[in-house]
Amino acid sequence: MSDRPPSLAEIEAAAYRLAPWAVRTPLLHSPRLDAALGGTILFKAEPLQRTGSFKFRGGFNAVSQAGGRPVVAYSSGNHAQGVAAAAALVGVPATIVMPADAPAIKIANTRADGAEVVLYDRARDDREALGAEIAARQGAVLIKPYDAAATIAGQGTCGLEIAAQCQDRGLAPDAVVVCCGGGGLVAGSALALRASFPEVAVYSAEPEGFDSTRRSLEAGRRTTTPPGAASVCDALLAREPGALTFAMNRELLAGGLAVRDVEVADAMLAAFEALKVVVEPGGAAALAAVLAGRLEVRKKVVVVVLSGGNVDVETFRHLVSEAAVRRSRSMTS
Amino acid sequence: MSDRPPSLAEIEAAAYRLAPWAVRTPLLHSPRLDAALGGTILFKAEPLQRTGSFKFRGGFNAVSQAGGRPVVAYSSGNHAQGVAAAAALVGVPATIVMPADAPAIKIANTRADGAEVVLYDRARDDREALGAEIAARQGAVLIKPYDAAATIAGQGTCGLEIAAQCQDRGLAPDAVVVCCGGGGLVAGSALALRASFPEVAVYSAEPEGFDSTRRSLEAGRRTTTPPGAASVCDALLAREPGALTFAMNRELLAGGLAVRDVEVADAMLAAFEALKVVVEPGGAAALAAVLAGRLEVRKKVVVVVLSGGNVDVETFRHLVSEAAVRRSRSMTS
Repeated sequence: MSDRPPSLAEIEAAAYRLAPWAVRTPLLHSPRLDAALGGTILFKAEPLQRTGSFKFRGGFNAVSQAGGRPVVAYSSGNHAQGVAAAAALVGVPATIVMPADAPAIKIANTRADGAEVVLYDRARDDREALGAEIAARQGAVLIKPYDAAATIAGQGTCGLEIAAQCQDRGLAPDAVVVCCGGGGLVAGSALALRASFPEVAVYSAEPEGFDSTRRSLEAGRRTTTPPGAASVCDALLAREPGALTFAMNRELLAGGLAVRDVEVADAMLAAFEALKVVVEPGGAAALAAVLAGRLEVRKKVVVVVLSGGNVDVETFRHLVSEAAVRRSRSMTS
Repeated sequence: MSDRPPSLAEIEAAAYRLAPWAVRTPLLHSPRLDAALGGTILFKAEPLQRTGSFKFRGGFNAVSQAGGRPVVAYSSGNHAQGVAAAAALVGVPATIVMPADAPAIKIANTRADGAEVVLYDRARDDREALGAEIAARQGAVLIKPYDAAATIAGQGTCGLEIAAQCQDRGLAPDAVVVCCGGGGLVAGSALALRASFPEVAVYSAEPEGFDSTRRSLEAGRRTTTPPGAASVCDALLAREPGALTFAMNRELLAGGLAVRDVEVADAMLAAFEALKVVVEPGGAAALAAVLAGRLEVRKKVVVVVLSGGNVDVETFRHLVSEAAVRRSRSMTS
């Protein structure tokens, strides 16, 4: 099946479909962060989205267009929960292929949404082959995590809302920074945002070592990052951009930003203290890029997408406590 | 100065004054908590309010009515930040009388909002006398934390928003549960809510040992709780209700609920996991009451007010980790 980038009308149609079920997440604002950064910074709070991340948007849009057939997806986390919740609402069976070592809470949440979970061994099994085999056997539609028009159109509703919320406040964003794994959220959002604000500079934010969109934008072609990297951003471990998403992003984005794990933890602490929102590591990459000064924000209007909040207590307290200790050391030294 | 309860029109006027500055905080929803509790539960997210708690509402309304005179307030936490931020926006000097052992972060935040902080010794000094003395010397207006019409009217805008947000969804709340210290938030919100929903049952939620509104409602008169109690809910340590707030609450409330510290910590964990919102101990009392079964919520529409999120990292991680350990023990035993 050859797919193609979605149109703006497909994003608007997705927004119409999603309206009864998705949360129109708030655009938060912190006078304290504004003062610290010298700009007007707004935060799109996707941790408050249904299933705790933006993934419900694309999942629901794709599942609702699967013609009432069963659906199958592979994911270790947010896409799994988004597709499972969407299938339950649409009323079709869902099978989610997850690694056996995925966090127990994510497996439990996916099952709680009514999906059948098929576990695989990361080292031994090929999850894509497993998904294709299940799809063939069940007559199910495979719901891709990012490289499909329906998924990208759903994620683009996030950008559509940002544009409307900026217009409501009489603000024209100079820049929008979006967390990026395979690139679906930033691609769909950039398309929607630039329809309302043709001059807006949209940036992807990725963990160092998995900054494949940044590298691909610089190279002018899809580039794979070297193996062996590691990051706390479990939701953003894509080593190359999608074909469809990169075809869009090379036309739409102003550039790519990369962040280190300690910067991500500092951003999670800042979201905790100044915004009172729980942000998972991968959901904090865009905020990390802004706080670490990867982008000039002084005297500018900048929107930062906080893309998800599905982090377990143990990981959260570990990262945020370390960030707090680091800060108090840097204050006293 | 004899004060009187605010009217509904004064709450609506406060909403008009607050509109450019306060956040219309979202009413959150968790399908997972609904499934666990068997009802439709909505969460008013005041941690996302300016200054991190509902206190900005009453603080701003009172400061904006102080006739351009300097203001003074005594508070160890949320009221201090609310008044300081309000004074900065209105453009009047603010002096905040705070205990010397208040959390450093709360003192720093109050100063960051431009207020002069006067520290006192909890054991030795009389903060009310200190505040009155400063007010007399500076010609300043004392902004009371709860027992004043302008403050209660401002807090009532929270209830006004809940009513409008329920109407937007076509829902009539059966009950609303509100965290309660001196009783300003629950009094103002109950007045506003019952104007739209005359049948709604509004409950206060307090920590055990500081459940003075609950005891006063049962006794039919203002009652002081015995000394010597302790609670993690630093924002709710009032040992008796306000005169004005209790005069309202005895007419408006359906009853009072009391919660234990461990139930508060469990509620903070639930807000972290299911809502992705940072809630401080005192801000989690109403959620704790619902999760602990103090109120029948099955098949009902219930609004829970999460009243604030100003908690330091160390306290948060301590309470939430303990709650997670308690849960995993109860699962394996």
